[in-house]
Amino acid sequence: MVDEARASAKPKRLTAKGAATRERIVRSAAELMHEQGVESTSLDDVIAVSGTGRSQLYHYFADKSEIVDAVVEFQIGQVLGAQEHLLRNATSMSGLDRWRDAIVTATRSRKGSHGCPIGSLSSALSDSSETARLAIARGFDRWEGELHAGLRHMRQTGELAQEADPAALATGLLAALQGGYLLAQARRDASSMQIALDTALDHIRSFTR
Amino acid sequence: MVDEARASAKPKRLTAKGAATRERIVRSAAELMHEQGVESTSLDDVIAVSGTGRSQLYHYFADKSEIVDAVVEFQIGQVLGAQEHLLRNATSMSGLDRWRDAIVTATRSRKGSHGCPIGSLSSALSDSSETARLAIARGFDRWEGELHAGLRHMRQTGELAQEADPAALATGLLAALQGGYLLAQARRDASSMQIALDTALDHIRSFTR
Repeated sequence: MVDEARASAKPKRLTAKGAATRERIVRSAAELMHEQGVESTSLDDVIAVSGTGRSQLYHYFADKSEIVDAVVEFQIGQVLGAQEHLLRNATSMSGLDRWRDAIVTATRSRKGSHGCPIGSLSSALSDSSETARLAIARGFDRWEGELHAGLRHMRQTGELAQEADPAALATGLLAALQGGYLLAQARRDASSMQIALDTALDHIRSFTR
Repeated sequence: MVDEARASAKPKRLTAKGAATRERIVRSAAELMHEQGVESTSLDDVIAVSGTGRSQLYHYFADKSEIVDAVVEFQIGQVLGAQEHLLRNATSMSGLDRWRDAIVTATRSRKGSHGCPIGSLSSALSDSSETARLAIARGFDRWEGELHAGLRHMRQTGELAQEADPAALATGLLAALQGGYLLAQARRDASSMQIALDTALDHIRSFTR
């Protein structure tokens, strides 16, 4: 049982069917946890929504904390996957503006609700689960890393002045994004997101020439 | 019972002893919810930690959601109370810098952990409880309002240029603060907070003359 659970941490060893079942469990858990919170989501909920049997679920996950860790990885993949194209092209001020427009539009279409799946998991888990916190931190690092790469490119091409610090600009931009999600969610209003991103982007723009 | 519970929404009607009991319940609930999450905190936990009897608790609160609403109000009072002096003096760039220094120092002393009590409540409750969401939004509005007042003053005294938009600058600053709390919590590192605030403050500084 323990060995099987261990194996679940390495999805590559699963058969195609096993991988599909595991993903169905993780996806259901991710949706439930995003909607009703991590703590409020029981294994019974996950079993019911994913249409998996209890023994099947325990074949892939030893306990809830293993599902939570898988949900963290899943959401990081989902969020960064959805932004992949925009992030890859955020290598100029106009590329960053397109990324900003897409986020503001998406936030507006939800009237600000739901927030960021990774940000919500971070708030719920960072103080209580060290494994989850580390995975979330790695997710933020990847996200910031994509922004950082684009900003570094902008300094190389001369769009940003040499004195600009791409690493700090990327941190400031990711923080603005996360704060924007949080305020927009509480206010059910995307304008907090727009202003938050524009604050960080105008700061970046001040280094253009 | 219902009338007594209703009365609890207006603490002024309570005797001094009643108000103290009510506050003890709310304070215990606030600490528990901040440490272990809103959903994971049961009324039994609150009863145990506050040293109140079950019937006493139900005298002041009809159900958990009423305690949650009281916790939201309590945390807004705590957070804004702790920053009151700094916010009142954030009427110049140097006043804003002192506010920033205090937050960075406090975040560093906790190695980034815990995040913002209001931000955490927002993330946990904004999509699930409309009463809580509205109270949290009012809390953010008050917080932003204090920053806005200081920035408006700075424009009046001429420290900020006329084209500066104090309302937007305040939103950007509060978003940076909330994003800073979130990243610092996930990374257990206050430098994300410092960079987040400096991004928004440098943007404000660009309007000084």
